[in-house]
Amino acid sequence: MILVAKYIITGDGRTLLKDHAVRVEGDKITEVGPLGEMLQKYPGEPVEDYGDATILPGLIDLHQHLGTYIHYSNVLQFNDFLLAYKALHAAQEAFAVGVTTIRDVSSDHLLVEKMRQAAKLGYVDVPRLYHCDRGITMTGGHADQITNIKNECEVADGIDELRKAIRGQLRAGADWIKVMDSHRVLTRPEFSQEELDFIVQETHRLERKCCVHAGVGPSVQMSIDAGFDTIEHATFMTEDQAKQMKEKGLAWIPTIITYTWAAEVYADENNQPVQNAPQSIKNFWWFFQLASQSYRDNFKKLYDTGVFVGAGTDMVMAGSPPAPLAMELEYYVRYGVPVLEAIKCGTANNAKILDAEDRFGMIREGLSADILVCEGDVSSDIKQLQKVKKVFLEGKCRYEA
Amino acid sequence: MILVAKYIITGDGRTLLKDHAVRVEGDKITEVGPLGEMLQKYPGEPVEDYGDATILPGLIDLHQHLGTYIHYSNVLQFNDFLLAYKALHAAQEAFAVGVTTIRDVSSDHLLVEKMRQAAKLGYVDVPRLYHCDRGITMTGGHADQITNIKNECEVADGIDELRKAIRGQLRAGADWIKVMDSHRVLTRPEFSQEELDFIVQETHRLERKCCVHAGVGPSVQMSIDAGFDTIEHATFMTEDQAKQMKEKGLAWIPTIITYTWAAEVYADENNQPVQNAPQSIKNFWWFFQLASQSYRDNFKKLYDTGVFVGAGTDMVMAGSPPAPLAMELEYYVRYGVPVLEAIKCGTANNAKILDAEDRFGMIREGLSADILVCEGDVSSDIKQLQKVKKVFLEGKCRYEA
Amino acid sequence: MILVAKYIITGDGRTLLKDHAVRVEGDKITEVGPLGEMLQKYPGEPVEDYGDATILPGLIDLHQHLGTYIHYSNVLQFNDFLLAYKALHAAQEAFAVGVTTIRDVSSDHLLVEKMRQAAKLGYVDVPRLYHCDRGITMTGGHADQITNIKNECEVADGIDELRKAIRGQLRAGADWIKVMDSHRVLTRPEFSQEELDFIVQETHRLERKCCVHAGVGPSVQMSIDAGFDTIEHATFMTEDQAKQMKEKGLAWIPTIITYTWAAEVYADENNQPVQNAPQSIKNFWWFFQLASQSYRDNFKKLYDTGVFVGAGTDMVMAGSPPAPLAMELEYYVRYGVPVLEAIKCGTANNAKILDAEDRFGMIREGLSADILVCEGDVSSDIKQLQKVKKVFLEGKCRYEA
Amino acid sequence: MILVAKYIITGDGRTLLKDHAVRVEGDKITEVGPLGEMLQKYPGEPVEDYGDATILPGLIDLHQHLGTYIHYSNVLQFNDFLLAYKALHAAQEAFAVGVTTIRDVSSDHLLVEKMRQAAKLGYVDVPRLYHCDRGITMTGGHADQITNIKNECEVADGIDELRKAIRGQLRAGADWIKVMDSHRVLTRPEFSQEELDFIVQETHRLERKCCVHAGVGPSVQMSIDAGFDTIEHATFMTEDQAKQMKEKGLAWIPTIITYTWAAEVYADENNQPVQNAPQSIKNFWWFFQLASQSYRDNFKKLYDTGVFVGAGTDMVMAGSPPAPLAMELEYYVRYGVPVLEAIKCGTANNAKILDAEDRFGMIREGLSADILVCEGDVSSDIKQLQKVKKVFLEGKCRYEA
Repeated sequence: MILVAKYIITGDGRTLLKDHAVRVEGDKITEVGPLGEMLQKYPGEPVEDYGDATILPGLIDLHQHLGTYIHYSNVLQFNDFLLAYKALHAAQEAFAVGVTTIRDVSSDHLLVEKMRQAAKLGYVDVPRLYHCDRGITMTGGHADQITNIKNECEVADGIDELRKAIRGQLRAGADWIKVMDSHRVLTRPEFSQEELDFIVQETHRLERKCCVHAGVGPSVQMSIDAGFDTIEHATFMTEDQAKQMKEKGLAWIPTIITYTWAAEVYADENNQPVQNAPQSIKNFWWFFQLASQSYRDNFKKLYDTGVFVGAGTDMVMAGSPPAPLAMELEYYVRYGVPVLEAIKCGTANNAKILDAEDRFGMIREGLSADILVCEGDVSSDIKQLQKVKKVFLEGKCRYEA
Repeated sequence: MILVAKYIITGDGRTLLKDHAVRVEGDKITEVGPLGEMLQKYPGEPVEDYGDATILPGLIDLHQHLGTYIHYSNVLQFNDFLLAYKALHAAQEAFAVGVTTIRDVSSDHLLVEKMRQAAKLGYVDVPRLYHCDRGITMTGGHADQITNIKNECEVADGIDELRKAIRGQLRAGADWIKVMDSHRVLTRPEFSQEELDFIVQETHRLERKCCVHAGVGPSVQMSIDAGFDTIEHATFMTEDQAKQMKEKGLAWIPTIITYTWAAEVYADENNQPVQNAPQSIKNFWWFFQLASQSYRDNFKKLYDTGVFVGAGTDMVMAGSPPAPLAMELEYYVRYGVPVLEAIKCGTANNAKILDAEDRFGMIREGLSADILVCEGDVSSDIKQLQKVKKVFLEGKCRYEA
Repeated sequence: MILVAKYIITGDGRTLLKDHAVRVEGDKITEVGPLGEMLQKYPGEPVEDYGDATILPGLIDLHQHLGTYIHYSNVLQFNDFLLAYKALHAAQEAFAVGVTTIRDVSSDHLLVEKMRQAAKLGYVDVPRLYHCDRGITMTGGHADQITNIKNECEVADGIDELRKAIRGQLRAGADWIKVMDSHRVLTRPEFSQEELDFIVQETHRLERKCCVHAGVGPSVQMSIDAGFDTIEHATFMTEDQAKQMKEKGLAWIPTIITYTWAAEVYADENNQPVQNAPQSIKNFWWFFQLASQSYRDNFKKLYDTGVFVGAGTDMVMAGSPPAPLAMELEYYVRYGVPVLEAIKCGTANNAKILDAEDRFGMIREGLSADILVCEGDVSSDIKQLQKVKKVFLEGKCRYEA
Repeated sequence: MILVAKYIITGDGRTLLKDHAVRVEGDKITEVGPLGEMLQKYPGEPVEDYGDATILPGLIDLHQHLGTYIHYSNVLQFNDFLLAYKALHAAQEAFAVGVTTIRDVSSDHLLVEKMRQAAKLGYVDVPRLYHCDRGITMTGGHADQITNIKNECEVADGIDELRKAIRGQLRAGADWIKVMDSHRVLTRPEFSQEELDFIVQETHRLERKCCVHAGVGPSVQMSIDAGFDTIEHATFMTEDQAKQMKEKGLAWIPTIITYTWAAEVYADENNQPVQNAPQSIKNFWWFFQLASQSYRDNFKKLYDTGVFVGAGTDMVMAGSPPAPLAMELEYYVRYGVPVLEAIKCGTANNAKILDAEDRFGMIREGLSADILVCEGDVSSDIKQLQKVKKVFLEGKCRYEA
């Protein structure tokens, strides 16, 4: 099958091909070349011509919580069956916004693993899944709240418990270890440096990578010192810290949208929350302001340090758009990153973070046919990335507008 | 929207319309009439013309176990998440064989209820669901087996426990109460007459209907005496019993296929199981023979007593086709029932059993647009019922070949 | 294969064949006839000639507790693994004393059922097994003692619990229901008449038979009134009661040996226990005297009422001989029953009690080749029954001296 | 009793005696000498002359899992009773292939200990047993899989839990401590070096020996560094590692057959799995190829380093032959080891590993009469080792063909 569109963005951060075509055989991209040559070389092969459109790699969302429901108004209806269906829906919605690979960074124990197993058994059709099983938090740490509903994370304190927790996550099929290390707004420290160091060391010893929720307080610096492979959010990171990350080869997943979207959607003309904004938004309005301003003011400076930047969305608030990686990348561009580089963050960079750059993440011969087709010229207007026409995962169409 | 096909089977057991059309607005059938008139009356309205095809009501499968997995080879992988996905897949596969309504007659506690809730919340897209939550069996009764895996049914003995079990099923959202009352092959009695009588009485008092698995031994007669609304299987029922059922207004769900399919698919030329037949099939080969012969020899005679006949499939064996109601109805025809009457069994009759004859189950003005389109002329060849072109549930296309 | 011995006791209570032979093919006896004719009819067929010996049906012990260990001195070592091995040993020892069929009348839940399953899977080689899973007793009834070791029986009180207990035993594969209804020496009543009646009624309704431990106090009469299929022990039964049993078609399993053996083995010349007798024997010496005298004085009178008599051993005391059915039958003869009739009690009668008279229990064409060969002429000396030469179960040699 | 055969292999790796005899008194070998002398010295003593046969020491299988059942198709039927019978059968089958001593290297908690106790109590007749109770694995390590069935191993992480686990195994009667330290095919590390070091140190302090499953990845080197007494499998060991083992006095149990048997039995002419091979075999076909090639290419080189080599079988796959130590030793010979040396590995070497070289493992005066008699001349054809005529354990015949 030969896919043709006026524009092809390969995902390397700089290449825009025109009048080119992509050949797909089975689940692989087997050739990328000038349209004319391709048609001549493969006469009779079916051609899908999308016209004034852009072909680019399927998007990768590195920060998802497919199983989140604890803030839903119908939380008391949930049991594992309903949760399974809710999470499935969340995964399937991602196709429609161009996402073909998801890294879930904490859901219920075994939820995403069993979804992945179900996909292998042919029960469900979902994006490619990576997961961390449940995140690990200290007693009273981020996401360990006192409620009469089950805990969203696994609680572990001290080296012995952390060792067991890490190994237990891997037994549950976790590809990554996820650690929660700072409350959304409270600045006090959570895990000790010794604990964070041990987590990274034991995870690496077991040949896995680890990511950390680090937002406010000392958590960003402590996480850098420990050497987490990806630091999620790092909302108030300094340039110096970004340089340290670069030096240590750590990657940053900013998740701008999770702090900024609500601050924009619910703002009135005075930048105060509109009356019918959810109470949870109102409560933390001050923080959304601080955080979104921080991204607005600092993102480009941090980016320019050369720190390795991936992309994820983390939209756990009820009512928020599903897996809006295209919207996240729009922020990158809005704050000064060239379109092609922003797309690289959400595709090739993310694949590299997953150690999968040889398997998917670009429009390149030999890689998996994870392909997104958007209307118009994405390279000149990042907003077109939200106008999805068609989505392929491993050569198979998963969504068509 | 106007749907056109050469043949329309309304589902009343005798009407075959030619050169007619069905008008659908929203989720309802709003008109059925001669094609010419319809086109004239609604100029400009979109028309779907299926040509040499048959339009008929979506099929209703009254005997499903969406959540069965205990005989699967990968049984040890199952937890509630994987079960949720397995059951969803089973429900979704039904669309492709023309089934738009399912009555599940025992799955894990809350499984189908939560699937229905998930459908209402927009998480999943499945046929219209009725369910019995878990079947009720006596200690050691059908489906209460000793394994180190959880029980497939709820166990209750004596009036007090049965009362609580029935009410508990209703709390769990059950539309029907399902009772297991005889082992597949053992002829000994299970529940006492007093218990069966109580079940029917308490269920009716709570304004629900009740169905009973009654196969061999005294269970069929005892179930008739108790007055269960539907008797499932009744594999070796006598004409006298069928007449009693008619008199008492009870309905029969024969599920011929669950006893006959394996006996045909795995038979060699000497009517012995082929070598690679599953061991579970071989073990009960003698029974499959007895049971399938009983249906072959007696079904038409029983049908002719005038007993009210519905249709269901009950295919719980690994490897069996999903929700094969069309295949079940083929047996009806093979054993002597006219095609239009067989289709009535699987549509209008089933709807009546569900007390839903005013809401769906026929191609009739005012009913839900649950519509099945099959290739060719189903009325002259019931096998065409298995050649599904398109399926609508509540006016929305759910499957297209 | 042709088996030859000077004497053949068929088990019908009166027939002693001389110069006859038994032909065995596979697991069946296919012919019994005069030796000369047989040899002529089947030239070249292998012949086993036991010479001055007796061929008779394999013995059936209707009262065994394969899993008993609670009175052993090493009771604290037991877990389910060791128990499995102990019970297996008990079953296998039975072969050496000529027993080919055992009815276990209470052992640990599932123990004998799993032994039977293991035999079917080829893991172990044991006599044909019937069982009652665990006996049922009332709270504080016989075998419900207060210890920190698990209960040997299932405790149930009242109709509702008894219903569940009975069904639970059947689920566990029980062929019979066993009830405990009087303490060894205490004369107070245990189950109420209503409870005993219900047990018999529900068991019969479920097409099983039921047996009852009834020794002292009102239990024998109450058990007769309830109609238990076999009454075990009935140590102090009156002639009137025996006649009632005859009339109602109930069978008696006297188990003389379990009350008499210890009273003889441990008696000094003054009929007092020898010094090194176990304490448990000394404690109940008075009772062993009473009971053994009762059998000695009354057994023949009771037998002569025509009550149907089977045979079982019940040797649960540590140190007692395994499955000594031959010794039990010796008591029958000692107290006046003709040898051939005594043997009928331990073979054909027991088979009839098990509803298996068409399958085994006699030396008769068409029955299972369950064959015992003893030295000498058993018909003239019942003690020869303890001199076992060879034992076949279903045509397969299981023991050879 | 004097045992005579044309050939006697003493088990020392080089001695083949002809025209000699072995004298057995009670459970001991009391003399080995020239036949003529022996007959003259002990006139009238019973003689068993096996003719053209070989007498050698009973085989020792150092790597058995008597209690494995989790991959059986009837896994749901198992409880501790059935498991006890299954394991007993596995142990008893070993006699028929010449195995008189077994080291079980992980079964259910207390299973083999209770089997040994049962043997001592006279309940069962089995080979001499050594065991490790349950193997120890880290959370998510080899044999700690997520299923809804119980865990096959004991899970322990970190020094504190390992200390308790080791002591608990010894309390359960374990003769050895067994550690699982690498997945069958995954190369990632499991226990840390610190943990492995501690296991060896604590086990030795408590005067026990320890063995480790070490297959792929860094586990072999880490196990050598820790100093485990036996390293099981070591499938991809290097010559350098073998030399390290020799230097440290560690023994190697290759278990060639568990990786090679399936690869040979199920191979078609293209070395692909035949169609009806079990799915579990097909899934790991690539690994069976790699592993069996590694043994084929390297076994002799490793052997020639002088590393101390024992022998075990580890056949846990359903359908595999029981305790095939003779087949394992055939691989040793096929890959270049002299027959007498191979037999020494499976007898005297294994006895030495068990610290029992003064009690059994050779045909030598003063040792236990654990004697295997095979047809023909084993010394010139290792295949004769599979033609078992008679087996003695402690002077008592346990098997006769």
